[in-house]
This record gives sequence, C-alpha cells and structure tokens, in this order.
Amino acid sequence: LGEFGLIKRIRSRSLMRHARVLLGIGDDAAVLRPSSHHTLLTTDLLIESVHFDFSLSSPRQIGAKAVLVNASDIAAMGGTPQTVLVSLAVPGPTPVKQVDKLYTGIIEACHEVGADLVGGDTAASPGPTFINVTMTGVVPSGCEIRRSGGNPGDLLYVTGTLGDSRAGLSILQSARKGRHRSFEQYLIRRHLRPIPRIAEGAILAKTRSASAMIDLSDGLSSDVIHLCEESDTGVRIDISRIPVSEQFSAWCRRTRRKPGSEAIRGGEDYELLFSVRPRHEAKIEKWIRTGGLSATRIGFLTGRKSGFKILDERGRLLPLREEGFSHF
Amino acid sequence: LGEFGLIKRIRSRSLMRHARVLLGIGDDAAVLRPSSHHTLLTTDLLIESVHFDFSLSSPRQIGAKAVLVNASDIAAMGGTPQTVLVSLAVPGPTPVKQVDKLYTGIIEACHEVGADLVGGDTAASPGPTFINVTMTGVVPSGCEIRRSGGNPGDLLYVTGTLGDSRAGLSILQSARKGRHRSFEQYLIRRHLRPIPRIAEGAILAKTRSASAMIDLSDGLSSDVIHLCEESDTGVRIDISRIPVSEQFSAWCRRTRRKPGSEAIRGGEDYELLFSVRPRHEAKIEKWIRTGGLSATRIGFLTGRKSGFKILDERGRLLPLREEGFSHF
Repeated sequence: LGEFGLIKRIRSRSLMRHARVLLGIGDDAAVLRPSSHHTLLTTDLLIESVHFDFSLSSPRQIGAKAVLVNASDIAAMGGTPQTVLVSLAVPGPTPVKQVDKLYTGIIEACHEVGADLVGGDTAASPGPTFINVTMTGVVPSGCEIRRSGGNPGDLLYVTGTLGDSRAGLSILQSARKGRHRSFEQYLIRRHLRPIPRIAEGAILAKTRSASAMIDLSDGLSSDVIHLCEESDTGVRIDISRIPVSEQFSAWCRRTRRKPGSEAIRGGEDYELLFSVRPRHEAKIEKWIRTGGLSATRIGFLTGRKSGFKILDERGRLLPLREEGFSHF
Repeated sequence: LGEFGLIKRIRSRSLMRHARVLLGIGDDAAVLRPSSHHTLLTTDLLIESVHFDFSLSSPRQIGAKAVLVNASDIAAMGGTPQTVLVSLAVPGPTPVKQVDKLYTGIIEACHEVGADLVGGDTAASPGPTFINVTMTGVVPSGCEIRRSGGNPGDLLYVTGTLGDSRAGLSILQSARKGRHRSFEQYLIRRHLRPIPRIAEGAILAKTRSASAMIDLSDGLSSDVIHLCEESDTGVRIDISRIPVSEQFSAWCRRTRRKPGSEAIRGGEDYELLFSVRPRHEAKIEKWIRTGGLSATRIGFLTGRKSGFKILDERGRLLPLREEGFSHF
C-alpha cells in the first residue's frame, strides 16, 4: 500500500461535514474559511506502552480514544470540535489492516464529536506506535472558559462520575481469566471510550456560567491544583460529595478499596471540573435538578493562603496531595 | 524539573507576538481571535533515526528544523505562519538540558517565521525521540494556492536551488575527519537549516499568479508528480534548466556525480514548485529579472496523456521516475 496509498485510502474515507472546511487531506495544508467565533487549538500525544497497550485495547479503540481525549480539551474551554490532524508512526512490520483499523477508530470518533479529519502525517517508527492528534474547535467570541478565572468563594462542580476509568484499567491489567462481570464491563468501557463533555462545556460557555474549567485527565487531586494555581486560589473538597457510579462502588467493595480516596486520585476521567460564582449557583442547581446538566457540587475555592484541603469521610480537614499520575 | 516544571519553563520563554493569539500555553487549549483570512493547518512528524540523527545535528538544529519544515508547508499554500503546537517525546534518561536546547531551536525558528508557540504536549518515550509540530497560518480569503489548480500549458517554476540539502546530508553521513571545505559547510547548512519560502509564496498568492504550488520535501521528481496527479496533468521538465548552486556543482565535480540527475532526485529542498498560466508569464519573468522573486522556469505542464517526461542533457525525452525518498 505504501505511504501515498494509505493517504489516498484515508482521504476517501474522511468526508467534509463542516462548511467551514474548504480543503481537507491531500494538499500541503488544510484550509478553513473565516469564522466569527474564537478558534481553539489543542494537541495530545499517545505512545504505545506509555498511554495505551495493544494487549489491553484494540487498534480501533486506541484510534478513537486519541481523538476523544482531544475533544475533552476542547470541551474544557467550552468549545465545539471542528477539525482534526493525525500524525501516526507505526513500527515497520505493522500490517496495513491494523493501521486501517486505527483510522477506522479515528474517523468514527471524529464523526461522534462532529469534527472533520483534515490532515496529518504518517511515518515508520523504529520504536513504539506513536499517535499525535491536534484538534481545532470553536467557541463564541469571549465565551471561552479558562483555568484562570476562579475566585475564592466560587463553588466547585464536576460532571459525571469519577474513578471509573482508573478502575477499568485496573480490571484490564489484572488479566483475570473468564468473562468479566457486568459492572466490570461498564468500567472497562469507561476506560476505553471516554465521553468528552462537549454539550456540558458548551452550555456553560454560552451562558457564561462557569468562572474556570479544566478537564480531568491526570485525576481530580492533580488537576484541581492546576486550576487553583492558574486562578491563584486554594480549594476545599468534600470527599463524601465526590460522585461515583454504582459499578465503581461495587468494584471498590469487591477489591476492598475506599471509594472516595480512589475516585479523587482517578486518572483519565475526562470529566469537567468547573467553578461557579455564587450568583450563578441557583441556575446551575436548577439545571442539575431538572436533568439539564449532569454535575455534582464537590466543594469550593478558597483564598490561596488557605491551601489545598480535603474534608475526609471522618470530617478531618487534610492537605490535598497531588496523587494523579504524571506522564513525564 | 518534571513535566509541569518543563511546561512552565517553555511558557515563560514563548512570548505572544500576534494580536490574534488571545491565550497560549498553559490552558486546555490555545485561543485565537477571529480573522477575515482563511486559516491553514498542517502537521509534520519527525522521528529520531528516521528523519534526524543526534550524531549529525544538534538538538537546537533539530528543534528549529521541525518548525521550519512546517512553515514550508504553509508557504506552499501562499500563507504566512501564525501559531505552533509541539508534541515532544524523549527517552526517559534524556537530560533536561538537551530538551531545553530542542525548545531553544523551536522557539528561535518560531520567531524566524513569525509564529507563536501556543501549545503542545510532552511525554517520556520508551523508544526514539518524536517531535510533532502542528502549524497554523493565514492566507487572504480565496488566495490559497492548491496542488490541484495546474493546467496543460502552464509554465513550471521552482524557487532557489535544488540538491543542496541532499548533498549536505551525504557530506554529514560520510563522516570524513577534518574540517569541511567552505562549499561543504554551505551544503550542510542548507540541509540543517531549510529556509521556508514564505515571502515568495505570499506574493504569488496575493497576486494570484500561480495556478498550483507544492513544496519540495521528498524531491522534485517525486513532488512534481503529486502536483500533476492533483492537477490531472502531465509534465515536461528540462533537466538542464534545474537551478543548482555553485557549491552543489563543486560537490558534484568532486564526487563525480551528474548535477541534473542528482538535483532532480533531491529531497528536503523545501523550495517551492509552482505553475503559472501563460498570461502571467511576463509578470513573473519581470519579477525574476528585477530580483523580486528568486525562481527559475524548468518546464511546463502537459496533458495527462503525455505523461511525466524529462528532457535530459543529451536532448532525449525520457520518462520521469519517482525517485524521491518515501518515508513509509
């Protein structure tokens, strides 16, 4: 097939859905029409045996995840995904079929988040498989939600449930024989297939309801500190309020883990953590009650000097430690 | 230093120069203001021991080149670079000093081409060093020059001189002891430090003088076929017209190579190849004569059925073979 054959093949499968995309794969650069919105740019690098493992997930799942984690970054600004560029390096002897499946996952995930695959690069790798995805998105001008906008006294919310992905990874790594139980299957799927919170991020941006926002990739305990450092605030998180799924609770019972401390460490949750000024509290709580927003209040921002604190299950106020995983 | 320490360090060194960049490194995504121009997107992946070698070039040179080759893609659309995102994976034991030098090269090259470093990702690599650069650019709306716009009868031009980079690589690889001669130093520099033809591309775009354009990364013999395939044309190149430098001629004499067939194969020239409709010929030739454009006419496009042809030094019309190097 070769490099150019592969490019032709990918090109024929990547349809342009956005009117903004004037030119996609096949030239020196993709071309986008002007937009009155702000443009967002983000990039994420996934490396075999560091970020993924072909023995734990299929090429299609890996390709999809590479796109979805970028969409989560766009969502964390309150934006909507628009275009994707993929750089892929695979070891020389990789069968074309496997590369093709990676792109199947990439293209499916692009469609899922409403983005067009508009460019990329391919190469042979003398080492592991390497996937870099760059995503562009749009957000109404001036509505983007930064990490730095939080203030002492703002309420802190998180979407969905935490800890599922980390539990799913543990289950995959334990390599137990036999079929997985249904709660295990759920957790594995949460690990393999993150759901970027695009709708949640977009509604918060359009209504200017969040003062600061970040997506949880390293884990709540680690990422909340990034938000606080950018906002120059402290934080207090009530561990008993951290939302967890029934499936995660079942797994914690079986494996004798503490759900709270497990969920706060997390990792690859790809949920949104956001702060809300008190004047928007009633609106947010109403959205949550009426099902318009799946989010839970887990604490509040404090002055910088108050530090990063956690209220544990026994009512003790403890220092929050950055226990999320660092890739470097 | 760690991942976050490194990010802070890079952030402090990357200044925002473009008013369009509202937010750079340090959030979930960079934010760009709206522009009335078209936006260009391109990405290029460089892998240690495939695309570069730490024994042949310094980290600073490699970092710079990773940016410059992307700028060449933007130039090939007639665009001007604007922002850069860099994903870097280095082997675990890499000294921070070396990573820092890579970023020094990256940031210097960004300044050279007028782009802002606005984001990226870093990771430890269990294999070789990977550098992926994504670049955005702008081009006046509707002025971008595609590969597909060529027509039979259009004249074919190339900027600068060809073959220098390939010769420079040969000299580096030959690992001869002792100091390089001055012509060798020139050729090595042409290999290590491509000069993206941004001004040339931009003037051709603004004046709508070129019907099709591509940058020469794989080599003329290979890239001209890509342009022709997209334009659905054939081509006839006069080998005696291919522009070469004095330094390249000196090297060919010393190593007993044929300059024409060496230059046409080329590779990593990062010059622009463009086609011009006959009605613009006089204008282009005047620019060339008056020094406004460094370019040379090397042939013309033909009907598809005439195929890809080369007129050799002895006046024979031979089939052009795709002898540029393929990365896959």
